[in-house]
Amino acid sequence: MVIVMAPDASSDNIASIVDLVASAGGEAYVTRGVSRTIIGLVGDVQRFATLDLRALPGVADVLHISAPYKLVSRENTAERSVVRVAGVPIGGDHMTVIAGPCAVETPEQTLEAALMARRAGASLLRGGAYKPRTSPYAFQGLGEAGLKILSDVRDETGLPVVTEVVDASDVELVASYADMLQIGTRNMQNFALLQAAGEAGKPVLLKRGMSATIEEWLMAAEYIAQRGNLDIVLCERGIRTFEKATRNTLDISAVPVAQSLSHLPVIVDPSHSGGKRDLVLPLSRAAIAVGADGIIVDVHPAPETALCDGPQALTEADLDALAHLVDTLPALVGRTLTAVPQTAALGV
Amino acid sequence: MVIVMAPDASSDNIASIVDLVASAGGEAYVTRGVSRTIIGLVGDVQRFATLDLRALPGVADVLHISAPYKLVSRENTAERSVVRVAGVPIGGDHMTVIAGPCAVETPEQTLEAALMARRAGASLLRGGAYKPRTSPYAFQGLGEAGLKILSDVRDETGLPVVTEVVDASDVELVASYADMLQIGTRNMQNFALLQAAGEAGKPVLLKRGMSATIEEWLMAAEYIAQRGNLDIVLCERGIRTFEKATRNTLDISAVPVAQSLSHLPVIVDPSHSGGKRDLVLPLSRAAIAVGADGIIVDVHPAPETALCDGPQALTEADLDALAHLVDTLPALVGRTLTAVPQTAALGV
Amino acid sequence: MVIVMAPDASSDNIASIVDLVASAGGEAYVTRGVSRTIIGLVGDVQRFATLDLRALPGVADVLHISAPYKLVSRENTAERSVVRVAGVPIGGDHMTVIAGPCAVETPEQTLEAALMARRAGASLLRGGAYKPRTSPYAFQGLGEAGLKILSDVRDETGLPVVTEVVDASDVELVASYADMLQIGTRNMQNFALLQAAGEAGKPVLLKRGMSATIEEWLMAAEYIAQRGNLDIVLCERGIRTFEKATRNTLDISAVPVAQSLSHLPVIVDPSHSGGKRDLVLPLSRAAIAVGADGIIVDVHPAPETALCDGPQALTEADLDALAHLVDTLPALVGRTLTAVPQTAALGV
Amino acid sequence: MVIVMAPDASSDNIASIVDLVASAGGEAYVTRGVSRTIIGLVGDVQRFATLDLRALPGVADVLHISAPYKLVSRENTAERSVVRVAGVPIGGDHMTVIAGPCAVETPEQTLEAALMARRAGASLLRGGAYKPRTSPYAFQGLGEAGLKILSDVRDETGLPVVTEVVDASDVELVASYADMLQIGTRNMQNFALLQAAGEAGKPVLLKRGMSATIEEWLMAAEYIAQRGNLDIVLCERGIRTFEKATRNTLDISAVPVAQSLSHLPVIVDPSHSGGKRDLVLPLSRAAIAVGADGIIVDVHPAPETALCDGPQALTEADLDALAHLVDTLPALVGRTLTAVPQTAALGV
Repeated sequence: MVIVMAPDASSDNIASIVDLVASAGGEAYVTRGVSRTIIGLVGDVQRFATLDLRALPGVADVLHISAPYKLVSRENTAERSVVRVAGVPIGGDHMTVIAGPCAVETPEQTLEAALMARRAGASLLRGGAYKPRTSPYAFQGLGEAGLKILSDVRDETGLPVVTEVVDASDVELVASYADMLQIGTRNMQNFALLQAAGEAGKPVLLKRGMSATIEEWLMAAEYIAQRGNLDIVLCERGIRTFEKATRNTLDISAVPVAQSLSHLPVIVDPSHSGGKRDLVLPLSRAAIAVGADGIIVDVHPAPETALCDGPQALTEADLDALAHLVDTLPALVGRTLTAVPQTAALGV
Repeated sequence: MVIVMAPDASSDNIASIVDLVASAGGEAYVTRGVSRTIIGLVGDVQRFATLDLRALPGVADVLHISAPYKLVSRENTAERSVVRVAGVPIGGDHMTVIAGPCAVETPEQTLEAALMARRAGASLLRGGAYKPRTSPYAFQGLGEAGLKILSDVRDETGLPVVTEVVDASDVELVASYADMLQIGTRNMQNFALLQAAGEAGKPVLLKRGMSATIEEWLMAAEYIAQRGNLDIVLCERGIRTFEKATRNTLDISAVPVAQSLSHLPVIVDPSHSGGKRDLVLPLSRAAIAVGADGIIVDVHPAPETALCDGPQALTEADLDALAHLVDTLPALVGRTLTAVPQTAALGV
Repeated sequence: MVIVMAPDASSDNIASIVDLVASAGGEAYVTRGVSRTIIGLVGDVQRFATLDLRALPGVADVLHISAPYKLVSRENTAERSVVRVAGVPIGGDHMTVIAGPCAVETPEQTLEAALMARRAGASLLRGGAYKPRTSPYAFQGLGEAGLKILSDVRDETGLPVVTEVVDASDVELVASYADMLQIGTRNMQNFALLQAAGEAGKPVLLKRGMSATIEEWLMAAEYIAQRGNLDIVLCERGIRTFEKATRNTLDISAVPVAQSLSHLPVIVDPSHSGGKRDLVLPLSRAAIAVGADGIIVDVHPAPETALCDGPQALTEADLDALAHLVDTLPALVGRTLTAVPQTAALGV
Repeated sequence: MVIVMAPDASSDNIASIVDLVASAGGEAYVTRGVSRTIIGLVGDVQRFATLDLRALPGVADVLHISAPYKLVSRENTAERSVVRVAGVPIGGDHMTVIAGPCAVETPEQTLEAALMARRAGASLLRGGAYKPRTSPYAFQGLGEAGLKILSDVRDETGLPVVTEVVDASDVELVASYADMLQIGTRNMQNFALLQAAGEAGKPVLLKRGMSATIEEWLMAAEYIAQRGNLDIVLCERGIRTFEKATRNTLDISAVPVAQSLSHLPVIVDPSHSGGKRDLVLPLSRAAIAVGADGIIVDVHPAPETALCDGPQALTEADLDALAHLVDTLPALVGRTLTAVPQTAALGV
C-alpha cells in the first residue's frame, strides 16, 4: 500500500500518518520527491483498510498494490485448477463444452436440446428453470417443475446438469437437482446468493457481471470460496459498452487476464455475448483459440418458438459445424475436448 | 411493433408473418419500400413477444415502439406521484433531503449523524445495517443490531428511517424496523428481492443499477409495482463509464428523462456518484437545479474512522453550506424543501 | 513515480532499477513489504518516462503520482483564469452564455438566430461554417461563405463569433474571421489542429472528446498551451456511454473536477449532451448550479428545417425561460451573467 | 424509414407528415395501432433526411432501417474485397500479417524489427514516423526522416510499408514513401484527413475510433470511398470501456459483424488492444480463429528502450511462437497465410 501526499502536505501531516500506521502495527517508509512525498506501508493490509487513510489531512491518494482477493488468486495457487462436475472436468488441459436450451420449456424440448448438445460435443447440459428477465411480463421459467425435467433428461442422456439459481432461499432446492449451480450476470454481486452457493456442496459457474471489472468478478468468486467452496468456474459472457450491433461486447481478453490472475477455469458464453446465431460459431472459435477452458452454448430444436433468447440459439443445421470445431481446434492450443459421457440409456 | 424485412426477403416470408400475426389475434400492415419491406403490427404486444418474430426467415429486425413498462409509465398516469414515508412526502412540488451515515456503526455515531442530518435540512434518515461490499473482507454491517439502533435514533430524532435490504429473506425483518426499504445498485435486477419488497407494505427507494439503462431501471420498478406497491422512489447514483476521476459518472440527464417517462419521483445520490466530499455540494446543487425530487447524502461525525465510504461523507464543517443550499435553491425550480419533522424528544 | 515490483522479483531486478534510475540522474528509494517491494523515484519524470520501466524484469506496475500536464494545471497557477473573447470575459466570477445556430445556413437564418441569442442573454455568437458530420452525405457547412455571414452578423448584432475549425490548414482563414476558434469533440486529439490553433492568436474553445478522460482533455489543452496560447476554454459536451435515451451522457461532475485540476474556465454544452430540446433548460440549470463558467446553446428560428441538429435547438418559445434562468441562477453560485454587448447597429 | 408517432399525436399531425413526404417526392403509408400510429416512408432516404422529421409535431421517433453507407456496404457488393498493397493481398482467402516497430527510431532498430517481422511471417512492414501522442511531451516521431528510413528498410527487406499519416497536409508526402496509409484511432473522424487519403492513390488502413460504433467506422470508410478509393482495410484495435486490466477492450465480435456489413477486409491489432506483451499471442489466435483477414503486431528488438509502447511489443523470444501460430491456424478457418515477399537483397 502506498500513500501519495498532496503537494502542499505538511511535515505534521506526514508524521501523523507514520504514527497512525505504527499504532496499527505497521511500518511506514517515507520518500520525499521533488513535488510530492510518498509513504510506503508494510504490514497487515486489512488492518490498514480500516484506517481510511484517504480521508486524512494531506493525503492525495492511496494506492493498493496487492490483489484484494486471496483464495482464488494465482499468487497463492500457481497451478490452474480442474473443477469436476459429476465427474466431468473443466480446466487443466481440457476444453469442455456445455450446451442446452436457454430455458427449460417442456420435457420434449429439453430432451431434444440435450441430444443436440451431445451431437455438438457437449459433456454437460445447460438449461434454466429460473429465468431472471428484465421484464416482469416475460416468461420467468418453470421453477421446480423445470428442475425435474432437467433431472429426467440427465437420466436419459447421461449429461450432468448446470442450472441457474437466482435467490439464496432456492439454493438448497436447486442444488438437490443440479450438478452445478449457475450464478447469472445480474446476480454477480448478490452476496447472499454467493454465500449460499458457497455452502451448497456443488460446483458453481459464476458469470461475470455485465459491467463488472475482472477484479470485481474475482472478488465475487472470493465470496464463494470463503465459504469453503473452491469448485468455481468463471464465465465471460460479454460486457456492456456503447456498441449496439451486438447484445454485449465479448471481452475476449478477459480469458487470459483472468487466467493469469486466478487459478480458476474460465469459460466463454458466445451465445449471450453476441446475441445472434451467426456470431456463435466465430466467437466459439475465438474463445477456444484464446485459451478458454470451455464454452457454453444455447441450442434449441425450434428457436423461432423459444420462450427465451431464440435468436441466439444454434439449430440442428449448426451442430455439425460446432462438433467439427470443438473436435479440431482445441489441439492447436494444447487441449483435449472433454469426452461426451457414455450412457447406458442411449446405448452409447 | 414494426418488423423490418431483410432486402432479400421473399413474398412467402412476408405472407407467413402476416398469417402468424393473424393467428395470434393481431393485424399486420405491409409497406413495401424501395429496398426493404416493413410490417406494422397492431394488437397484443405481450402476445407478439412470444412469437420470437426476430427468428423468422426474412426478418432483419423487430422494433418496439411502446414502452415495455406499464404501471410506472407516465403514459397511463400523467400526474407525477407523491410518495409518503411515514408521512414525509417525496415528489410533487417537494424537494426532500435524506441524510445519514453510509453504515450504522454504533448508537452514538448514528445519533450524531442523525442530528447532523437534521441540521442539514434532512427530513429522513438514511443508514445501512446490511452493507453489500465488493470485498468479503470488508465490513458487512451490523445486521439486526443496526436496525435496532436506527429505530432508537428515529425515536430520539423524529426522522423516519430509510435502510437497505439485500436479500429477499430479510425483507420482512427489515420492513419491521424501517420506514422505507432501499434496494441498492447491485440488486436492481435481483428480481426475488424486488418482488419481496413489492409485498412488504413499505415504500421502496430503488437505486439505478450501475450499468442499467433508464428503461431497465423502470422495468425493475415495474417488478415492484406489479406486486401492488406503487410507492417507489427512483434514485440516480451514477453509472459506470471509462472516466476514473470520479467513482461513478452522475447521469444528471437521467432525472428529467426518467421524470418524463415515469410518474415516480426521482432523487439523486451525490455522495456515491462522485465518491468525493468536495463534489457533494456542487452535485447537490446540480441535482436540485435539474429538478430532482430530492437528494440523499452521506454525513458522518468522523469520516476518517468511518467503516464505509468515509471519503465521500460530509462533515460538521459542510452542514451549514448544505443547509443554505437546500433552503434557497429549490424555490428557483418551483419547489419547497420538505420540513424537518418536529419531535417532542428534541423539544423541536 | 512509484514502481511496484512483482511478488517474485529478485534482488537483482531491484538493484538494476536502482542503477538505471541513478544513471538517469534520479534517486530510487526501496521499500520492502511483506509480499511486494516498491521503489519510489525522485527526479525528472520526463526523463524517467523514456526508460520504459514497465518493461523491465520484475516490474509489475509503474504508478504516476503527478499530473502529466503543466501549463494548464492548477498546481502551478492557483487562481482561475479569465479568457477574453473580443473583450467578452469567460471565467472568474462571470457566467457567460454563448448561443447561435448549430450550422450557418443563410444570412437571414444566422441573423435571426443571433438576435434570438441576444434575447436569451448570450454575449457571444456560435455558428458552424465547417461541420464535421458522421455521414459524407450530410450537409458539411458553407465554408468560407459561412464565415463571411458570421462576420456580417457580428457587425449587425455586436456579438463576437465562436466558430469551429476542423483542419489545421484552415486555421489561418478561420482565425481571420472568428473571435474564438472551436475545436470539436472528434478533433480533440487532432494534434496538428491543436498546435495550429495554439499559434493562431485567438482564444480556443476545446470540446471534450466523446470518450476522452478528463486527464486526456487537459493534455489536449496542454498541446495548445505549449504553443504559447493559454486563452483556452474547456467545454464539456457529454460522453459516450451505454445509455441511449440521450445523445450523450452529460458528465456534470467533470465541471468541478476539471476546475480543481486546471485554472482554465469550463463551460457546458447542454444541447449536444442531451440531443433533445426538452433537456436543454434542465441541463442548463444543472450546469450553472454546479458552477460552470458558461453554457453554449443551440438556437434556431425554424428547427424543423435546420440542416443540422434541429431537434436540440431552442426556439423562440424557449427564449424567455432561458433568459430568466441565466438572469437569476448565477447569483446563487456567486456569479454574474456576462452582459450582452451594446451595439450601435441595433441601437442598444 | 419509419416514423413512430407519439400516443397523443393528432390526425392533423399525421396528415401534415403525409403531405410533407409527398412534397419531397416520397410516399407515406400510415398504420394505426392500439396506442400509436406508425408511418412507413418509401422514396429517397437522403431527401427525407433533410426534412428533420423528428422535429415535427406529434413525432416520437424516426427509425432508419437501411445502412447509411453505400459504397462500402455489402448490400451492394456481395463478394468480399481483396486489397493489394504493392502486390501483397489482404482479404479473400488470405490471412496477412503486418508487423514492425510502433515507432521508427533509428535505421538499425527499424531494419532489425523488419527482419523480426519477416521471421514472424509478416508480408508487410508497419512503423510510425508521425506518432500522435496523448502528451505533448512524449516522442512525436521522426517525421520525413522516419519515412526515409522505412523506404530504405523496404529496399533491404522487400517488405512494403504501412505507415500512419496524421494531418491532411502531410498525405501527399507520406504517400510518396508509403505503400499503404494508416489512419489512426484518434483520427477516424478527421474528415479532412479521410478525404485527402481517399485521393492519395494508395490503399488505406483505417483503424476504428476508440469509442466509435461499427456503423460510424463504416461511415468513416465511406468518406474515403467517396473520393474514389475502395482499397480500404478496416482495423479493429480495441474500444474504450470501464475495464482497466487491459489498455483497451478488443471487440472481437466486430470482425464478423463488420465483415457481414461491409465487403472490406477486417484485420485486428492485438498489440494496441491489450497493451501487454503476454496478451499478443492469445489475442492473435483469437483474431485468426474468429476469421480476421489479418493481424498487425508490434515487434521491437529492445522493447525496454522503445520510445513508444514498448510493453506491448513482441521480442525475439516470441517470434517462433507467432510464426508457428500464423503457419498453422489459418488453415482451420479456410485461409492461407500470405507469403513473405521474396527479395534479392536478402537472397531469399
